[in-house]
Amino acid sequence: MSTEQRATLDAILRQAPFPADLGVDELREQLRALLSAQPLPADLTVIAGELGGVPTAEVTVEGVEPRHAMLYFHGGVYVLGEAALSADLASQIGRRIEAKAISVEYRLGPEHPYPAAVDDALAAYQGLLQNGTSPADIVLAGESAGGGLAVALLIRARDHGLPLPAAAYLMSPYADLTLSGESMRTKREADPLMNPDALLARIPDYTAGQAAALGLISPIFADLSGLPPLIIQAGSHEVLLDDATRLAREAAAADVEVTLAITPGVPHVFQAYHAILDEGTEALDRAGRLLAGHMSEAARVGVERTIGA
Amino acid sequence: MSTEQRATLDAILRQAPFPADLGVDELREQLRALLSAQPLPADLTVIAGELGGVPTAEVTVEGVEPRHAMLYFHGGVYVLGEAALSADLASQIGRRIEAKAISVEYRLGPEHPYPAAVDDALAAYQGLLQNGTSPADIVLAGESAGGGLAVALLIRARDHGLPLPAAAYLMSPYADLTLSGESMRTKREADPLMNPDALLARIPDYTAGQAAALGLISPIFADLSGLPPLIIQAGSHEVLLDDATRLAREAAAADVEVTLAITPGVPHVFQAYHAILDEGTEALDRAGRLLAGHMSEAARVGVERTIGA
Repeated sequence: MSTEQRATLDAILRQAPFPADLGVDELREQLRALLSAQPLPADLTVIAGELGGVPTAEVTVEGVEPRHAMLYFHGGVYVLGEAALSADLASQIGRRIEAKAISVEYRLGPEHPYPAAVDDALAAYQGLLQNGTSPADIVLAGESAGGGLAVALLIRARDHGLPLPAAAYLMSPYADLTLSGESMRTKREADPLMNPDALLARIPDYTAGQAAALGLISPIFADLSGLPPLIIQAGSHEVLLDDATRLAREAAAADVEVTLAITPGVPHVFQAYHAILDEGTEALDRAGRLLAGHMSEAARVGVERTIGA
Repeated sequence: MSTEQRATLDAILRQAPFPADLGVDELREQLRALLSAQPLPADLTVIAGELGGVPTAEVTVEGVEPRHAMLYFHGGVYVLGEAALSADLASQIGRRIEAKAISVEYRLGPEHPYPAAVDDALAAYQGLLQNGTSPADIVLAGESAGGGLAVALLIRARDHGLPLPAAAYLMSPYADLTLSGESMRTKREADPLMNPDALLARIPDYTAGQAAALGLISPIFADLSGLPPLIIQAGSHEVLLDDATRLAREAAAADVEVTLAITPGVPHVFQAYHAILDEGTEALDRAGRLLAGHMSEAARVGVERTIGA
């Protein structure tokens, strides 16, 4: 428990200036300033790369020899954010599962609306497979819109008949761009960062006239059957809480293995504040253990398949 | 993964004779026969006891010196089941958290309808506290109706201003006696054991004319705020799946720490089949780790309070 830590974080986030009436350029600049205010850990190196023709930010940790690969998708309502700005959070997951963190620079709206982001995610995943990485050694991870995008990628990959990664880790996934969750209303005051108006203002940048309820835009409405295990985490102080709970419910209904963990009193993508919030560290630790278990399980199934063949 | 194990278990359960038109006495006899067909592990001893005037079955494991206590609530739609018949499953949890498993012989309908079961659960919990057991050393666990009952107990204990246990572990909780979950319909064919008709037939035995939507009968409709961490598990092949997912959602909305884990392709209270189902063992292992973490955390908070005082 960390009552003081939670109160401090809440106060910091309530000062973050992301009003609904700001333009995209200003929002991008402000998010960049916010996320780059804290220097990266000294043992991290971020190298520009590419996968399947899509630019990436590869995060390496000094002294760690990765055995696995993680495709990471940053947040920012499909309009903001940059692959490199999520390097610390991505590396926190990578450290825990001995995985190289590859943050994907998927294209953003309004310049590149849906399906550009999903196309890029799929191309990057195909690129990783074509490099010879075993799907049993791959996990996906994503925060906010990146969590929704990771699910959209799994759906596309399944529909293309591609082998699927071992698991996906979704932090506060933005999975319903129709904003129909009850928590949009019930958590409005409790959420220090996000609100329905600010979300609504940016949705047309991504949908560009297409239906927000499309399954690849709002995966809570998609057929989720056949997906690999999903690990979903959210805080109880966020308007996107019900995106997480409904995604878990829909995945369970479709016979997908799912673990949903809700941490009380913490905000959207609270894992990003692991340096000042014990709950963030604990959530990353738990996700790391689950991901590692799924990778070894997938590898075991692969071995059994090879022996049986 | 255990495709064969799951298929075998499904076939066994589909032969279990629990038709909706059987009387209570026959149902009780058949459940007793089913649950006592397998002998208890040789290192288990079940001793009749009492707590707060309520009979219990205390389960001790040879060679294990318990440091904690677990109140256990068996299943059986508030009409069937016996404390001692759940001794193996209760002991499986107890073994993992160094806890003495105390299975509560709460009164059943139709002879003793609501609120008899909740009264007995509360009396047993109060008895445990009065014995000097620290709430930080107590967890609750329950299967099916026993899972719903454990939540009802937490609500009553909260409303009485009692100190609450460290956590509760709910296996396939029966938490909506109005049977309003979508899974009542969508999982009807997939569920090898339960169906809405059989459930419906027994509900009047417990409600005895009272509203099934009462929060202490159907805790998904209750105010869950202030409850300790909930660990909820269910299989995707059960009509009660949405009792689990909705309970998790409501708890999260009420700022309760909640972990929901859904295992695909397994039935109601699949943990009971741990001897023949790897998923059962894995689910018990995961729950044990989470429960142990909450007990040590609650103990830590207690220590901090003492030092601060």
